[in-house]
Amino acid sequence: MPRSLRKITERQKQMLEYLRSYQREHGVMPSTRDIQRHFEFASQTAAMSHLRALERKGLIQRHPHMARAVVFPADLKRPEIVDVPLYGSIAAGYAENQEQQADGSISVDVNTLGLARGSRVFALKVRGESMIGASICDGDVVILEAREPRPRDIVAALIDGETTLKRYLVSDGKPYLKAENPAFPDLIPVRNLEVQGVMQTLIRQVRRD
Amino acid sequence: MPRSLRKITERQKQMLEYLRSYQREHGVMPSTRDIQRHFEFASQTAAMSHLRALERKGLIQRHPHMARAVVFPADLKRPEIVDVPLYGSIAAGYAENQEQQADGSISVDVNTLGLARGSRVFALKVRGESMIGASICDGDVVILEAREPRPRDIVAALIDGETTLKRYLVSDGKPYLKAENPAFPDLIPVRNLEVQGVMQTLIRQVRRD
Repeated sequence: MPRSLRKITERQKQMLEYLRSYQREHGVMPSTRDIQRHFEFASQTAAMSHLRALERKGLIQRHPHMARAVVFPADLKRPEIVDVPLYGSIAAGYAENQEQQADGSISVDVNTLGLARGSRVFALKVRGESMIGASICDGDVVILEAREPRPRDIVAALIDGETTLKRYLVSDGKPYLKAENPAFPDLIPVRNLEVQGVMQTLIRQVRRD
Repeated sequence: MPRSLRKITERQKQMLEYLRSYQREHGVMPSTRDIQRHFEFASQTAAMSHLRALERKGLIQRHPHMARAVVFPADLKRPEIVDVPLYGSIAAGYAENQEQQADGSISVDVNTLGLARGSRVFALKVRGESMIGASICDGDVVILEAREPRPRDIVAALIDGETTLKRYLVSDGKPYLKAENPAFPDLIPVRNLEVQGVMQTLIRQVRRD
C-alpha cells in the first residue's frame, strides 16, 4: 500500500481519525462546518484545504458538488460485511442448556465466511475438549449456518432438550451425534435430535497468558 | 431482531438492496433523484415516501435536512473493520520460499481479531500438517501480528531464507522453531532466524466435499 506510506502530517492523521469516528458514530461524514468546529479552525476554507490535501495523497475521495460526500478508497473495494450474532457458549463436552441471549456479534466479510448469499448464520463459543480430534478447541468460536445437515457435517444440535457441538452421522437411517475424542461417548437421541446449525467457519483468538 | 422480521414489501426489499449496493459502489447513499431514476418513479416524492416507509419500519435512519444522509442502523453499532492482506500460503510442513504478493484480503472486526489498535497484521494460508498438534490444519488461514515473539508463541519465521509456521522456543538463549507434530524435526537456524509475525487469530472455512 504505497499510498498510505506517503508522509502525512500529525494534523492530517487527526483529520482522518475524526472522519472515521464521525462516520462510525453518525453513519455519514461530517460537513466542512462540522470539521471547522471540531478543530476550531477560523474558517471552513481551512477544513476544505485539509480535505483537498488528504485527497491529493489518495487517502480520501470526494464527490464534487455533494455535501458530506467523502469516501475512504478502502471502503469502496471492501467486500460485504456480515454481522453474525454470538449466542453464548456451547459444550463440545456434554450437552447443556443453551443460552439464548446474544453475547454480541462478530463482523466478517462474506468471502471469508464462505457463505451463500442470504444464509442464516449465528455463532457459538465452544467449551470443552470433545471435538479436539477435529481440531476444534475449548474457546474457539464456530459460525453455523441454519440448514439441513448432511452426514459428517459438524453441527450444533439440540438432543433431548440440550445443545451440543458434535459430528452428525446416520446409521441405519437414524441420526446420532459423535464426539471427536475417544473419551466422549456417542450421543444417541432418546426422544429427538434437532440440528440448529451446521458449522461453516471457525475463528480462534490466540490467548496471551 | 424483531424489526427485520416486520413484514416488508418486495419493492421495499429492492429499495434496501439498491441502497446497500449504491453505498458499496460509491461510498455514499443515492440521492432521492438517483432513487427516482433507478426505479423509474414518476416523481421524487415516490422515492421519499419509500424511504419514509423504510424508516418507520426501523430498517434505515435518516438525518433531516441532509442530502444522502441515509444510514443503516446496523452500521452505526458495527465495530471497526480491519482489512488484513492475505499473502499466499505458508508451509506448516517444511520451510519454503514465501510468496510475497497479496492474494486478496480478509475483513474482520477488531474485537474478533483481538488486536491492539495500530497493530500491523497480515494473513497466510497454512499448508501441511506440521502444526496439527496445536489444532492448526492444512488450509487454515492464520492472521499474524508483526511484533517481537515471546517463547511459545506460534510464529511465521524466515529461517535461513525460507518461511515456515512453527512454535518459537528459546534454549540456552538461542531461538529455534518446533513443529507440533512428532513426525517433523525441530528447525535450528544455521545462519539466522527472522520472525515475520506472531499468530493472533485463526480462521477455518469448512470445505464442503
